[in-house]
Amino acid sequence: MRETDTETDASGRPLRPRAVDLDRFFRPTAVAVIGASDTPGRPNTGITRQLRAWSERVGARMYPVNPGRDEVDGLPCYPDLAAIPADPDADPIDLAVILLADPAAVVPQLVEAKVKYAVAFASGFAETGESGRAAQRHLERLVAEAPTGLRLLGPNTNLNAFERFRDDLTGPAIALITQSGHQGRPLFTLQELGIRLSHWAPTGNEADLEVADFVQWFADQPEIGAIAAYIEGIKDGRAFLLAADHAARRGVPVVAVKVGRTDEGARMAQSHTGKLTGADDVVDAAFRQFGVIRVDGLDELQDTAALLARAKPPRAPGVVVYSISGGTGAHLADMASSAGLSLPRLSEAKQDELHQWIPEYLSVANPVDNGGHPVGDWRGRKILDAILDDPDVGVLICPITGPFPPMSDKLAQDLVEVAETTDKLVCVIWGSPVGTEAAYRETLLGSSRVAVFRTFGNCVRAVAAYLEHHAFARTYRSPFDDAPREACAGKAKAQRLLHGGEKLSEFAAKQLLRSYGIRVPREQLVTSAAGAVRAAGVVGYPVVLKGSAPGVAHKTELGLVKVGLTSASQVREAFRELTENARAGGIPRLDGVLVCQMVEAGVEMVVGVTDDPVFGPVVTVGMGGVFVEVLRDTTVLVPPFGPGDVRRALARLRCRPLLDGVRGLPPMDVDALVEVVLRVQRMALDLGDQLTELDINPLVVLERGKGVVALDALAVCR
Amino acid sequence: MRETDTETDASGRPLRPRAVDLDRFFRPTAVAVIGASDTPGRPNTGITRQLRAWSERVGARMYPVNPGRDEVDGLPCYPDLAAIPADPDADPIDLAVILLADPAAVVPQLVEAKVKYAVAFASGFAETGESGRAAQRHLERLVAEAPTGLRLLGPNTNLNAFERFRDDLTGPAIALITQSGHQGRPLFTLQELGIRLSHWAPTGNEADLEVADFVQWFADQPEIGAIAAYIEGIKDGRAFLLAADHAARRGVPVVAVKVGRTDEGARMAQSHTGKLTGADDVVDAAFRQFGVIRVDGLDELQDTAALLARAKPPRAPGVVVYSISGGTGAHLADMASSAGLSLPRLSEAKQDELHQWIPEYLSVANPVDNGGHPVGDWRGRKILDAILDDPDVGVLICPITGPFPPMSDKLAQDLVEVAETTDKLVCVIWGSPVGTEAAYRETLLGSSRVAVFRTFGNCVRAVAAYLEHHAFARTYRSPFDDAPREACAGKAKAQRLLHGGEKLSEFAAKQLLRSYGIRVPREQLVTSAAGAVRAAGVVGYPVVLKGSAPGVAHKTELGLVKVGLTSASQVREAFRELTENARAGGIPRLDGVLVCQMVEAGVEMVVGVTDDPVFGPVVTVGMGGVFVEVLRDTTVLVPPFGPGDVRRALARLRCRPLLDGVRGLPPMDVDALVEVVLRVQRMALDLGDQLTELDINPLVVLERGKGVVALDALAVCR
Repeated sequence: MRETDTETDASGRPLRPRAVDLDRFFRPTAVAVIGASDTPGRPNTGITRQLRAWSERVGARMYPVNPGRDEVDGLPCYPDLAAIPADPDADPIDLAVILLADPAAVVPQLVEAKVKYAVAFASGFAETGESGRAAQRHLERLVAEAPTGLRLLGPNTNLNAFERFRDDLTGPAIALITQSGHQGRPLFTLQELGIRLSHWAPTGNEADLEVADFVQWFADQPEIGAIAAYIEGIKDGRAFLLAADHAARRGVPVVAVKVGRTDEGARMAQSHTGKLTGADDVVDAAFRQFGVIRVDGLDELQDTAALLARAKPPRAPGVVVYSISGGTGAHLADMASSAGLSLPRLSEAKQDELHQWIPEYLSVANPVDNGGHPVGDWRGRKILDAILDDPDVGVLICPITGPFPPMSDKLAQDLVEVAETTDKLVCVIWGSPVGTEAAYRETLLGSSRVAVFRTFGNCVRAVAAYLEHHAFARTYRSPFDDAPREACAGKAKAQRLLHGGEKLSEFAAKQLLRSYGIRVPREQLVTSAAGAVRAAGVVGYPVVLKGSAPGVAHKTELGLVKVGLTSASQVREAFRELTENARAGGIPRLDGVLVCQMVEAGVEMVVGVTDDPVFGPVVTVGMGGVFVEVLRDTTVLVPPFGPGDVRRALARLRCRPLLDGVRGLPPMDVDALVEVVLRVQRMALDLGDQLTELDINPLVVLERGKGVVALDALAVCR
Repeated sequence: MRETDTETDASGRPLRPRAVDLDRFFRPTAVAVIGASDTPGRPNTGITRQLRAWSERVGARMYPVNPGRDEVDGLPCYPDLAAIPADPDADPIDLAVILLADPAAVVPQLVEAKVKYAVAFASGFAETGESGRAAQRHLERLVAEAPTGLRLLGPNTNLNAFERFRDDLTGPAIALITQSGHQGRPLFTLQELGIRLSHWAPTGNEADLEVADFVQWFADQPEIGAIAAYIEGIKDGRAFLLAADHAARRGVPVVAVKVGRTDEGARMAQSHTGKLTGADDVVDAAFRQFGVIRVDGLDELQDTAALLARAKPPRAPGVVVYSISGGTGAHLADMASSAGLSLPRLSEAKQDELHQWIPEYLSVANPVDNGGHPVGDWRGRKILDAILDDPDVGVLICPITGPFPPMSDKLAQDLVEVAETTDKLVCVIWGSPVGTEAAYRETLLGSSRVAVFRTFGNCVRAVAAYLEHHAFARTYRSPFDDAPREACAGKAKAQRLLHGGEKLSEFAAKQLLRSYGIRVPREQLVTSAAGAVRAAGVVGYPVVLKGSAPGVAHKTELGLVKVGLTSASQVREAFRELTENARAGGIPRLDGVLVCQMVEAGVEMVVGVTDDPVFGPVVTVGMGGVFVEVLRDTTVLVPPFGPGDVRRALARLRCRPLLDGVRGLPPMDVDALVEVVLRVQRMALDLGDQLTELDINPLVVLERGKGVVALDALAVCR
């Protein structure tokens, strides 16, 4: 990553995104096409012509460059960029499109001519194996070192940035970013359904410009209402978070498909663009913390991005389902509440109002069932007005499962008309699988104010994303503002405990925790039975004895833990057993026996640090004890995060009720747990270079006001 | 439920479905329309005309019945059924359609005329509240008591059964059952996309004929390939299971949307057709055990039913993803493996074969990425042939995310052609949101052998359902064949412990378990400290003391449990504390103190019985101990079920690894656990009338060979 701002956090990673100005990339004044051709049948001929048409549309002058010819399609052609005459009336070349197999070879020319942006179409780089990766690294270096600030799109990209966008559509647009051209096609095609698209960035192998750069820049463009992305791998985790943070601050929604839910997908994505997909739960956590809306299918990407781009912020979170069939209303209400939407019961007064037009025996509490006939006449519009007039209602969803022209055509028309009169969100589901009906194609798609869906599922998921996005954006507080810039006071002491490649003993690992202010039991490391008895006197009975050796996990199973010892004789006996069990368990050398204070019962949690290839050290928190591996009730936090993120993470755990106090147990000290998770984040930032893994398990959360205690820990040095 | 076979299980419920013959319902020879009209503008006029058109299509003679007129649209009209002349050449009336507001009033006529089937359109019954429910019960009784075997569809139904079905479509058809006409419309409309539909049963309020009757009958019709259902509530749980069992034995897939995922949906469904939706996890369990495929949206219902109706059984479970873009292949492979599909890696030999036509640098291991160009020429078909020729491959999925005619049109054509040459399943996803392209509408939808989808998600879910259905059908063994017909020997003894309205004490509840051969610890009930010490001697030290009082749960929290007592003095002291704690805990009278054998450690499970309003007593099994309420790791089994069902249920639990042995623990006695669950089922069947709830928690599963022991139980009598 190239820095434009030297501000960094305690781990040395940037706290501000790199500056990116793509104005002239998307709206150049002069474009050079290197490798331009007009030889019939050659692929470059088609590309040259498409670029010429695009240049004309955006008002740029195009210069073909090719040493093998004098002109291309009637335009004068130049042997190289330097040969293009410096016209004092014309702007310099802002964009060079390289159609050659070896884009690296032309970088010196680009630098010489002070070209700002280049695009490389050639494939055969990181997606093809080791020699391709080397070639890509070479190209990357050339671009990064260019003194002119050259920015490169590609290699292994295509013409998508230079497509013909419909300019007759108005309102906020979707900007599209894809790491695969074919995958962006359905979203591009949305323009045929009246959804405006303003930009398409096909990032290819991302030797320089990456998804983050486009998110960053798109978030600042006033015409862009939402950013839609198809992502196979994230090149630089921190750059991605900073870009998402920027979009979150600006309130611009980012909706993304991210491949890598399974190993299968991860493997295939890697062979496609040579990118690591990263651990999927880490991606989920990063998206969640920074408000990126993750969807699974391209259809959901289209529907969610289109809704978020175009809909005004909600006036209220309440959703009303309105239909001409009680069954349809029940089904949609069921799916809507499954998706987390809130369907408030309409007031008695509102219900009475609706019953002026809807027969008394039909339920209008929400869902509102009109029984069919009222939509066919003047009552249809009255009902819609009355529903949208309710201050608790922010969203109206009207499912039309099949065309029945006497009703559905009039209903569609009423919905389009009422949407013109309100800022509230009006959603219609056109459920016919045919989709050629006039009510759908002409009436509904003809409106820019009605959000039109084809399935219940996509509608409720998109509406949930819409409400969540706005709730998120309203309360978003960037963790980068509060991210620690300096290392903790304990860092130096902690570093002295870390030795390359070592697994720390329990005793050393606890020292490490202590240096970051994380409480551990009172304990002493002893090497003799007599020492153990003396230590027990200091620590205070009852005590626990534990065999301590570097990197031994699962001590309980190995018989290396003796709890509840209340006398000197029990301590002596336990010491003897432990050392025997260690020998029997194949542990040649205990570094000693820990004599620990017996901590009262609490809720056993686990807090750990692991190293993600994309996002660096990440923090895991979850249910601890012997169940950690079985129940896998854990969740991830990606630094930087604040206390609010930790609380939200804890709320997602299935074991959460244990912390709140269940079955007569008191509420536990969640504040202290949050604080420990934040301290572990500090350790991850300060020591990430030296620490590859940390696991505090169990971390016992005591009742409220009593704090948390780390009973055991495992630490692995890099 | 009307019995045609007296075979019943131990609970007295039928083991065989009631006979249902709907031949003449769907293909009558003579139809009476009671309330027929030709007065312009009256709703009954439209209905009469539609019924006349339908009668003509199915070759039936129609008789209008209306005392107010002599003819209707030129047909002679009769004042009542009796007035229709008995024509020796004509068949008697098989079907009477009642257009009157009070269908009950005409039942005597129907009986008199020996009409076999009637349809009642009138609404205002169970869906409208108490008086409507009373009217429906009256109608139900009249029909049930009709000596002529009259069957009634409705009330609150509509014309859907008499729609015009396309008769130019061939191949296996979908039969549709809906409890809401509007909800069936999209599926009916599938005919416009070339999917054959043969029947539509709109069951309305189900005063007589219910979803189960149609499932039962449709499963026997040779032209029906799949049954699709939209269900709000199941009228009779046992009838539904018997019908699903019949379809499972016949290998006919049943795909259903079932409303009631949330309370919202359940409430609304009830107000729509007056049906209870039942507990949703019980519905899930019933569907799973009997192979009913549950889907969420109507779009999934369409796509899954269409695939299952038309596709031949799989030749292999392997799925290959084939695309013209590596990105698309990666994304679809990711979604496919998330949906549980298996994507085998193609053999090196097969990959070499494919590389004859596909450039070497593209991955063809599966997903197969052809890079685009090969589909445009003769190579396209070669590749498809080679993939489908692989014996490991049963399903080919080809996603086409956007129309690019030089490639997509040829690819679509090749797919249609190759599908004609193979019994293997060929799926195509047409990803363009527009859907008016010729390659989609003409080429793909024109084929009856290619399964066409619009989204990745619906395709992978439908293919997963297809593979699961065939795996299920191949190994299905009806639990009705093995269901116990007689009560257990222990029933009489158990019944003596049950007293109306009572909660049993722990001691009594354990006696109940014992009467069904479920092991409990050795224990004695005592009422004095001296008695406790004597009992401890008999039971054997160490012992546990527990306060026993009717219906006291959470004894540990109340201080009513003392474990690990190793001496007479400890037992005496514990007895004193228990009785004090009981007094302090507001339990006026302990019926005694249990002195129990101390059982060794194992995995704590819970097994219970609850009463479902739709399916009767159901059995729950899951993780027990203090976590049961927090982690809710439980699953439901609906009787009748066999040992295989129990094993599959256990496999679904998150805590399953604890039973298999983790972290050095031995594998546990799963066989004994399965046996206890089956015994609890026997209790539920034998004692369901008297027992409203049973909870064995914890049920300790010991290591393999050592069995299981019920440490505590709660039982509530009806």
